[in-house]
Amino acid sequence: MSDNWLSKVNWAQDGLVPAVAQEASGGRVLTLAWMNREALKKTVHTGEAHYWSRSRKKIWRKGEESGHVQKVKSIHLDCDEDVILLEVEQIGGIACHTGRHSCFFQKLIDGNWVPTEPVLKDPAEIYRK
Amino acid sequence: MSDNWLSKVNWAQDGLVPAVAQEASGGRVLTLAWMNREALKKTVHTGEAHYWSRSRKKIWRKGEESGHVQKVKSIHLDCDEDVILLEVEQIGGIACHTGRHSCFFQKLIDGNWVPTEPVLKDPAEIYRK
Repeated sequence: MSDNWLSKVNWAQDGLVPAVAQEASGGRVLTLAWMNREALKKTVHTGEAHYWSRSRKKIWRKGEESGHVQKVKSIHLDCDEDVILLEVEQIGGIACHTGRHSCFFQKLIDGNWVPTEPVLKDPAEIYRK
Repeated sequence: MSDNWLSKVNWAQDGLVPAVAQEASGGRVLTLAWMNREALKKTVHTGEAHYWSRSRKKIWRKGEESGHVQKVKSIHLDCDEDVILLEVEQIGGIACHTGRHSCFFQKLIDGNWVPTEPVLKDPAEIYRK
């Protein structure tokens, strides 16, 4: 297929757009990461979420170290064509590098960000070589 | 309450972070917009979603023209403390300026972004003065 769909995305000046991953079953918002053209292309062609790491400045296959891959069920674009939404199956049930289900585990309660989700697996175990 | 919770957010160099709004009932991801400190503060203090408009360069109360206000049920922060997630009640059931329920109405199907949601109300009616 042609790459017209890639050009329809309004990539920002830095070549990136935010990409939200939502769990297909249950609807939890798991992660927000960043994509460039190559990351979106790889996501589409492999069916697994790929992102651009702004800190490491490279493409990153979600789960490449942890095994916590995001299998992509569907890909959506917003009205301004500058945000991606992925519906995913989160392998291992852990999206966050802290070992929690979702990255959005801190909730604002009475002026404090309170962790409201358990650590399901010790990161030292997730990332041991 | 003190503003420590505001300082815990890792505001980017431009003073902004992305803010995802998810419908509390049903879990649909509705919008992604941007917040600065003032927008988050107003969101917390009023219970209605406020964003920073990057194009108009001003604070914007979601729904101020359309009436499609987002009533905030809870506010969440991710592990890197640079993304906000709001759980909201979407007044009017329309989050998108195109008159659709969600902004993420385009789905990638066979290499094309296909609108997969109906327009619930004509934007000309939503935004008439």
